[in-house]
Amino acid sequence: MTNFLKGLSAFPITPADASGKVDTSGLKRLLAPLVAAKVDSLGLLGSTGSYPFLSRAERRRATDAALEETNGKVPVLVGIGALRTDEAIALAQDAKAAGAAAGLLAAVSYTPLTDAEVFEHFSAVAAASSLPICIYDNFATTHFRFSAELVGRIAHIPGVVAVKSTAPQPELVADHLTQLRERVPPGFSVGYAGDWNVTETLVAGGDAWYCVAAGLFPKACLAIVRAAQAGDAAEARRLDAAMAPLWTLFKEFSSLRVMYAAAEIKGISAAAPPRPILPLPVAAKARIAQVLQEMDLS
Amino acid sequence: MTNFLKGLSAFPITPADASGKVDTSGLKRLLAPLVAAKVDSLGLLGSTGSYPFLSRAERRRATDAALEETNGKVPVLVGIGALRTDEAIALAQDAKAAGAAAGLLAAVSYTPLTDAEVFEHFSAVAAASSLPICIYDNFATTHFRFSAELVGRIAHIPGVVAVKSTAPQPELVADHLTQLRERVPPGFSVGYAGDWNVTETLVAGGDAWYCVAAGLFPKACLAIVRAAQAGDAAEARRLDAAMAPLWTLFKEFSSLRVMYAAAEIKGISAAAPPRPILPLPVAAKARIAQVLQEMDLS
Repeated sequence: MTNFLKGLSAFPITPADASGKVDTSGLKRLLAPLVAAKVDSLGLLGSTGSYPFLSRAERRRATDAALEETNGKVPVLVGIGALRTDEAIALAQDAKAAGAAAGLLAAVSYTPLTDAEVFEHFSAVAAASSLPICIYDNFATTHFRFSAELVGRIAHIPGVVAVKSTAPQPELVADHLTQLRERVPPGFSVGYAGDWNVTETLVAGGDAWYCVAAGLFPKACLAIVRAAQAGDAAEARRLDAAMAPLWTLFKEFSSLRVMYAAAEIKGISAAAPPRPILPLPVAAKARIAQVLQEMDLS
Repeated sequence: MTNFLKGLSAFPITPADASGKVDTSGLKRLLAPLVAAKVDSLGLLGSTGSYPFLSRAERRRATDAALEETNGKVPVLVGIGALRTDEAIALAQDAKAAGAAAGLLAAVSYTPLTDAEVFEHFSAVAAASSLPICIYDNFATTHFRFSAELVGRIAHIPGVVAVKSTAPQPELVADHLTQLRERVPPGFSVGYAGDWNVTETLVAGGDAWYCVAAGLFPKACLAIVRAAQAGDAAEARRLDAAMAPLWTLFKEFSSLRVMYAAAEIKGISAAAPPRPILPLPVAAKARIAQVLQEMDLS
């Protein structure tokens, strides 16, 4: 298999009502421009897509709606993380049955997990689903710390095809990539999330950007990816610098909260994030609206 | 109301099968000796009781079984934590309907939460359930950091009656207690978890010990509480020192994993923890068995 997890993967919010029922029409309105912009993949039900807050049935409804909207034009990566191994297996099977191209599996934890437990979790899900798996390493949400050694061991489980790491500070990127590349098999995709630090990972040869901003602003993010892929580091950095006002908002309010506000400002969806997460206050939304206007993002 | 959350609260495991179905007979076998030992309260579905791994229906079954077994002899505190506010409300209403004395509410998070979000979460649950609420502050599992100021604000929400904090290192206990006492209303219970550090909080005047070890070894833990309550700090410390071999195992393997092994060793329940958490290896179980034998715990 040629690894399709390359380039730009756009991670939209999943609009839902207060009870957690997914607004599939709103989701399709979010996805249509991403398909039209030709992002390299869609990241449905990522952390920005609030996957842990949604029931299995609603995650399946969202997945079906996304597969309908993309209609084979863009591969869909679906978040299949869950606290219980049997739930993650069921979610992987659902995603496979719906036609997802891969599953994004985080080491969701409450009781802190050991390396052996996370390895067995990934083994069990990969074996039971035959869905290609992307390792989702996100310490800020799961509080599980993947070592490069553990990523390397999981990367050799049949069916595990990629890793989505949090982009380190620029000065640590080269070492981080080297540590992972030395341990994963040939053709394995090493990609990064954490929008404000990702450009340097692309310039350094990272395979993919798992991108929150692209959930609403695919063109600006695609331009950075294409510049990096063409070897034009200066242009990639120039375009990234132009995104700095958005990155500042992401760091201040969290990218998830900003993207809910931005979807409302753009008139695509007025959905609130799942409680206990609160919509941003009016003053914050006004600042976001002003920044988006000044940046002239489309 | 006289605050019943004083003294020893015993937190047993919740035995369940691989699919997450609670073994109510096994649970009753765990609870009966705790009732007989006259612990001051039972902490059902705490972190050691694996509440986040169980469905709402199974949590209700466990609660009903516990209320049946305790039969009014010991107040039952029930874990009502959930990632979604509406789920926590439903769990609080279930616990109230089943006859629980109070609900234990953690700031369960995936997306990191703000203080305002956690305050609203507690307000919503307290208002919707009329169940007395104990604030469950456990950074190691939720990764939400409660300030004393936030505990103080939540403590003034009608229906919030207690806080369960993680016991700090001995040299920090006096300041921690002072910081909380200054901010909570009169009669509000300030208690601690984290067995190996709790004795000093009791000696310093903490109201309650939310105790994992008491889930199987109530007498040894009650002796410490009663000594501290009688003002005999030396005796409390002597009894605590005798528990040191168990505390060492808790720190090495986690109290949850040790308690599953100990329940099996004692012949009460051979249930495994919920996957991805793995049963301890045979060698670790053998060490635990030897320590328990040498300590002569009952």
